[in-house]
Amino acid sequence: MNQPIRVTVWGENYHENSDNDREGMAERYPDGMHGAIAAGLTKLLGDAVEVRTATRDQPEHGLTDEVLNSTDVLTWWGHVRHAEIDDAIVEKVHQRVLSGMGILCLHSAHFSKIFKKLMGTTCSLAWRNSNDTELVWTTSPDHPIAAGVPSPIVIEGQEMYGEYFDIPQPDEQIFISSFTGGEVFRSGCTWKRGKGKVFYFSPGDQEYPVYNHPDIQRVLANAVQWAAPVSSTFQVPSVVNMAPPKFVDTKLNPALNAE
Amino acid sequence: MNQPIRVTVWGENYHENSDNDREGMAERYPDGMHGAIAAGLTKLLGDAVEVRTATRDQPEHGLTDEVLNSTDVLTWWGHVRHAEIDDAIVEKVHQRVLSGMGILCLHSAHFSKIFKKLMGTTCSLAWRNSNDTELVWTTSPDHPIAAGVPSPIVIEGQEMYGEYFDIPQPDEQIFISSFTGGEVFRSGCTWKRGKGKVFYFSPGDQEYPVYNHPDIQRVLANAVQWAAPVSSTFQVPSVVNMAPPKFVDTKLNPALNAE
Amino acid sequence: MNQPIRVTVWGENYHENSDNDREGMAERYPDGMHGAIAAGLTKLLGDAVEVRTATRDQPEHGLTDEVLNSTDVLTWWGHVRHAEIDDAIVEKVHQRVLSGMGILCLHSAHFSKIFKKLMGTTCSLAWRNSNDTELVWTTSPDHPIAAGVPSPIVIEGQEMYGEYFDIPQPDEQIFISSFTGGEVFRSGCTWKRGKGKVFYFSPGDQEYPVYNHPDIQRVLANAVQWAAPVSSTFQVPSVVNMAPPKFVDTKLNPALNAE
Amino acid sequence: MNQPIRVTVWGENYHENSDNDREGMAERYPDGMHGAIAAGLTKLLGDAVEVRTATRDQPEHGLTDEVLNSTDVLTWWGHVRHAEIDDAIVEKVHQRVLSGMGILCLHSAHFSKIFKKLMGTTCSLAWRNSNDTELVWTTSPDHPIAAGVPSPIVIEGQEMYGEYFDIPQPDEQIFISSFTGGEVFRSGCTWKRGKGKVFYFSPGDQEYPVYNHPDIQRVLANAVQWAAPVSSTFQVPSVVNMAPPKFVDTKLNPALNAE
Repeated sequence: MNQPIRVTVWGENYHENSDNDREGMAERYPDGMHGAIAAGLTKLLGDAVEVRTATRDQPEHGLTDEVLNSTDVLTWWGHVRHAEIDDAIVEKVHQRVLSGMGILCLHSAHFSKIFKKLMGTTCSLAWRNSNDTELVWTTSPDHPIAAGVPSPIVIEGQEMYGEYFDIPQPDEQIFISSFTGGEVFRSGCTWKRGKGKVFYFSPGDQEYPVYNHPDIQRVLANAVQWAAPVSSTFQVPSVVNMAPPKFVDTKLNPALNAE
Repeated sequence: MNQPIRVTVWGENYHENSDNDREGMAERYPDGMHGAIAAGLTKLLGDAVEVRTATRDQPEHGLTDEVLNSTDVLTWWGHVRHAEIDDAIVEKVHQRVLSGMGILCLHSAHFSKIFKKLMGTTCSLAWRNSNDTELVWTTSPDHPIAAGVPSPIVIEGQEMYGEYFDIPQPDEQIFISSFTGGEVFRSGCTWKRGKGKVFYFSPGDQEYPVYNHPDIQRVLANAVQWAAPVSSTFQVPSVVNMAPPKFVDTKLNPALNAE
Repeated sequence: MNQPIRVTVWGENYHENSDNDREGMAERYPDGMHGAIAAGLTKLLGDAVEVRTATRDQPEHGLTDEVLNSTDVLTWWGHVRHAEIDDAIVEKVHQRVLSGMGILCLHSAHFSKIFKKLMGTTCSLAWRNSNDTELVWTTSPDHPIAAGVPSPIVIEGQEMYGEYFDIPQPDEQIFISSFTGGEVFRSGCTWKRGKGKVFYFSPGDQEYPVYNHPDIQRVLANAVQWAAPVSSTFQVPSVVNMAPPKFVDTKLNPALNAE
Repeated sequence: MNQPIRVTVWGENYHENSDNDREGMAERYPDGMHGAIAAGLTKLLGDAVEVRTATRDQPEHGLTDEVLNSTDVLTWWGHVRHAEIDDAIVEKVHQRVLSGMGILCLHSAHFSKIFKKLMGTTCSLAWRNSNDTELVWTTSPDHPIAAGVPSPIVIEGQEMYGEYFDIPQPDEQIFISSFTGGEVFRSGCTWKRGKGKVFYFSPGDQEYPVYNHPDIQRVLANAVQWAAPVSSTFQVPSVVNMAPPKFVDTKLNPALNAE
């Protein structure tokens, strides 16, 4: 694909504007978490991507038909306002994924409506916010998502996410994390749903500047390229009323033009 | 588990009562399709199961809290009234599956709300109703679901279901079918969702007496036993706020009583 | 299966008899590691199993045709004498697995000939022997192998095994471990090969009394029951010259007696 | 990767030279089957590949260290001379796959030493040579290997390969075939082994001109691109003696330079 990958970085944009978090967020993420994620992608991928952002507080959460219909890969970060997201928008995102759009669900987006809808499980997990160090180990070397990062990636301050993480068995297990407290977490997982590729990646939190970490930025850039659709048709799988049999009298049906 | 498996056979019970289908249904399935499925299970499993039926036209579709809370394995057949099923009931069934209840989704239940919710995909497929013969080939020999049936199982009259079947990659591919028309279909698939086991099995249709077929009855009986929960606690996975670290100073946290 | 599961516990039996290790082994494992493993199975499973042991230093490594042909589940522990195992015996074990025998490959058996033959990869890993604490977290709740053990299982002294563990993607990921040093390891994995079930479980080492740990004994007992074959025919999959077509003239071939 | 993919097309080159088959082979495959496969790749991929051939009857079966060490993707076709392939060469090919080289195992290569070594199973199947029509259905739309081919691909004359195919559960099921005789076959499957990608594809036989079929050529061209390694380092996974712990006193070990 010589066309740039059209990426939409979606952010909940709540902590950025809440009285409790505004000051710290302005230090860690002066352009918002979505701004930091978008900047990392642009820095690493350059002309290979066209990156824009969209946020919850915009009309239609920033995900109008026009935006969705021109998005190849969507990244999603949300935390405390999942319930406010309009079900009709979630349904449109779901259909777009099934038709081929890639999606990266990040950190606390494990509890987003779109991730739970794609997984079919509770997506619950164990957590503790006590400034653990997280080590992100690669369990799928030579996978494009893990290219160019060390094993482990070291994140000195992080919220802990631990097992049991209630997800379907991943198609591919790319990363598993440990924490200073002794916990483990399947922190990088892929699935295919319909024609779309899904990547869940847990490192990243509003209270820690994880999205400024060069290795984390590299994983996200790799994942955007991995999740880009193969074809540009974006047709959702649908029922086919398959009229004529292919075989008649143990021969190919002569009424068919074999495609 | 020495206790009998508590099975609820759920039926849409529409064709049985529609003017178009009533006569044929009475011949093929005098006790309804749910009745035929239930009878097959009882015949083959005897005291190892307690089987009851529930149908769409009952209050709460027959799936009251009392019924669900005493169901180990649920079988689901629906076709033209999926949209009428109350979302609140579907949500309860979903939670029960995630907490450990097994579920068998049968034939046109590929488009039921519960199956789509568990899969996260469109679950669409190709079909043609022209009295094909279906051959059901085992692709996982020595799997308990395939025990005691020939490969292929031969079904002389059947609706055709064909690929592309829009499902997540199955955890286990138990059966693949071919049809006289030349089509193929992943007709027997398993997944785990939360603590619950899911089996999709396509053979079975209102216009053909497939649920009276001894090999099909055997597959359903096998699948009920396979899908039965391991534990009897039925707790849905949920968030754990994991307070104290397990490791302190590279030692087990002395404040913890190791479970 | 009302018949007891016939288990053969295979041990390398080298450390038990080497000048360097004899004294410590006699304290930790007075009946050998194979003896400890066998005793745990007998204690927990009672009449549900018939357990015997076999060791490298016996004729045919203790795995005569008579022994193999009456084994339902084999457990394998080896460490420094993998290369001495006769290829012809390994081939027989492989055939028996493919025909339905379950196999549990334990700890340093990751480098056994039989495990590498079943996996098709190097099965290499990272390690460090520095008396780490290992925490064994369940990632597949309600799986029969994880029944009755806490998450995590706590092993206070253990060799560290870490990623990258070069194995095919497991069919099921049952356990993931962390270590005080910060490493992670896919410590409990299942695969199916032919008709046989394979479980790899890393906890257990000659220098630490891990096989006396009640939770580890429970996992092994669970795994033996899980790995037991469904049928008792033990026929290895083989080429079928499938003479007559099933379909002729879009009908079932009348020359066939449908099974 | 802007460098061309270095492809080696390996052929058994037996039927081409046997008295029984020489005449027919010369009609169907005047440059040998390996020649036809190589020509298809060059025609479709142009400058994106550098294609050469190697055959059984050459010194070291054409797979010298120099050839293997400059091969990114190997395709393998063999049928009646599997047993003659030198185990030392097979071992080298195996190591090269584990270090990142892609491999396409074609048709009767299901019984090649290298495929069986990668799979760990018998790789046996059912077959009948009676000029069936084969339909190759896509079960993974938008997968790069299935790009640009119809579903089904129609092959008017083909040997039948049917289930049970004794392979490990594929990582991805790309194609499933049906045959006029009623059989089904998992005809396009992927696995990862070590760092290398493996694609098995059954269409293709010495008695039918399948490798001249434009859709089959397209699948092979797609698969070569899919199987190309991500990195160019080609290091086989190996044991790591991981000396210092990452965590000390619940902090990152200060003696470590985090990579």
